Amino acid sequence: MRIRKLTEKNLIQAIRENFSQKMEDLLLGIGDDAAVIEAGGKKFAITKDLLIEDYHFRASLNPPYFLGRKSLSVNLSDIAAMGGRGKYALLGLSFPASISKQWVEDFFSGFESAAKEYGVALIGGDISEAKKIMISVSVLGEVKNIITRRGAQPGDEIFVSGTLGNAKAGMILLEKKHKLGREESVDFLLMAFLDPVPQLGLGEALAQESLASAMIDISDGLSVDLHHLCEESGCGAELELRKIPISEQLFVSHKKAHDFALHGGEDYQLLFTVSPQKLKSVLELRERFVVTSIGRMIPGKRIYIIDKKGKRKLVKEMGYQHFSKLRKT
Amino acid sequence: MRIRKLTEKNLIQAIRENFSQKMEDLLLGIGDDAAVIEAGGKKFAITKDLLIEDYHFRASLNPPYFLGRKSLSVNLSDIAAMGGRGKYALLGLSFPASISKQWVEDFFSGFESAAKEYGVALIGGDISEAKKIMISVSVLGEVKNIITRRGAQPGDEIFVSGTLGNAKAGMILLEKKHKLGREESVDFLLMAFLDPVPQLGLGEALAQESLASAMIDISDGLSVDLHHLCEESGCGAELELRKIPISEQLFVSHKKAHDFALHGGEDYQLLFTVSPQKLKSVLELRERFVVTSIGRMIPGKRIYIIDKKGKRKLVKEMGYQHFSKLRKT
Repeated sequence: MRIRKLTEKNLIQAIRENFSQKMEDLLLGIGDDAAVIEAGGKKFAITKDLLIEDYHFRASLNPPYFLGRKSLSVNLSDIAAMGGRGKYALLGLSFPASISKQWVEDFFSGFESAAKEYGVALIGGDISEAKKIMISVSVLGEVKNIITRRGAQPGDEIFVSGTLGNAKAGMILLEKKHKLGREESVDFLLMAFLDPVPQLGLGEALAQESLASAMIDISDGLSVDLHHLCEESGCGAELELRKIPISEQLFVSHKKAHDFALHGGEDYQLLFTVSPQKLKSVLELRERFVVTSIGRMIPGKRIYIIDKKGKRKLVKEMGYQHFSKLRKT
Repeated sequence: MRIRKLTEKNLIQAIRENFSQKMEDLLLGIGDDAAVIEAGGKKFAITKDLLIEDYHFRASLNPPYFLGRKSLSVNLSDIAAMGGRGKYALLGLSFPASISKQWVEDFFSGFESAAKEYGVALIGGDISEAKKIMISVSVLGEVKNIITRRGAQPGDEIFVSGTLGNAKAGMILLEKKHKLGREESVDFLLMAFLDPVPQLGLGEALAQESLASAMIDISDGLSVDLHHLCEESGCGAELELRKIPISEQLFVSHKKAHDFALHGGEDYQLLFTVSPQKLKSVLELRERFVVTSIGRMIPGKRIYIIDKKGKRKLVKEMGYQHFSKLRKT
């Protein structure tokens, strides 16, 4: 295998080119939120996410209970982005021999609580010693109608679920030594970072009647993940800044609220596109889910944002920064 | 979750107790070489293994090409031990930003060569920066008849495939700066450590007509893995030292050949038991595979070995040493 330059983007490109096997039962390989295989008339989505100490989390900031929950939730978010529901999980966990029994117990209690909440069974894995904590979870989910990153077309409307930027604000608050249980609005932001909620119900609802033309979960940030979706779909996008949903808690506490919402990452909300014909059905979903239209797909490759003064600006691709997917340090 | 004491054995026990969900499609959960699920009339074995720098390998001893091969092969060995064949792989890989492009290219070339050799498709994964190299591979395989660790009974004969102890000898030679390509017998031992061969053909042949009553792959060493098999099957075992197959290359070069064969680990051969009724069919397999009878299952819990002088000794459980599954340092 040959890599042009050792950047994450080039490496993933090289891997996709080298490992693009055609297999009868493989419906979707490398390059989406999850791979999808077919077995006995059923479709299964399968995904794997790494959480590495000092890169994706800090042992001093992320209490083990929530880390256990998050390690499963971020994988379930990938399954949600395919329109599926999680079913089975494998857990790879390594930690230093010096770790406390309490840490390990709390981590597993968190993992267990999320597994129960989302109806997922832990069926195997591997445990090892290592200098740093490293968590590798794989989830196998069932999916009826797959929604990929590829189906968006110019004219489709762009939606996001929930509100954006809270996780980034929560992480900064944690770094500033804010604690849970003191102020409600702070708790909201801290929990957005510590304990993200995979949007499984919405993902399934959108998939059920193929309401979304394309979908991705927001793990790297709206701007980065929209770039992924645009690249795979072969179109551009135009966002309206004033439409991007921001929580009151974020809005009143952070001047950079819009920056966090655009580039913050780790929101684990869903970003999806809807064709004009399906728009009415999606708007009806608002009775059950918080979804907001934030712009539309356009021809070309570029992503623009219309700022508060009505000016149209280019949104640069911020992602793929040299292998630190979520480096916040 | 409560753990009695933070040892690998206690932790895995606590996990098994806490996560023993009954799910309709789950045929086999935590505690075997792989979990097995059912989907549309087919059975799928799924497994995950971690390879962590300085614990499972050393960057200075394991060339990246072989590390890429081994990271897939050790997972396929788990699938072989269930009687299945590998189909899909997910790769989680982290490495320092300072790593060379060549290292990454060589690693993936190795992974690709093993994937082609064994007919496995890489369908997804995750890449991240980290201080140390960490590899987490998950493999999904198809299996017709499952062979677990649980089915052995007193009176069954114990078999192993291939020869044992070569990997341990190879690792020691590498530590002593021996290089590939200088001496044939040294190469044989080095390759046993660097590039183990998963026994997929034999595993499938044994499963096809349910010839083995129980099976496990030898990753931690014959003594440890036989303890696992005995524990799950609820019997003891009696080995005959003189019957344990040792390669000529190991025999002539190492005084501790039998020690390596018993406790060395990383052989990735299959250890399986055969009931008296199936013995003839298994012996016929010797036309295609190297399999050797090394003893028999007995009532009780203990494992004995009959040494060269005919003395019967207890084989102590050496495994589960405080979280370093394969620590050789």
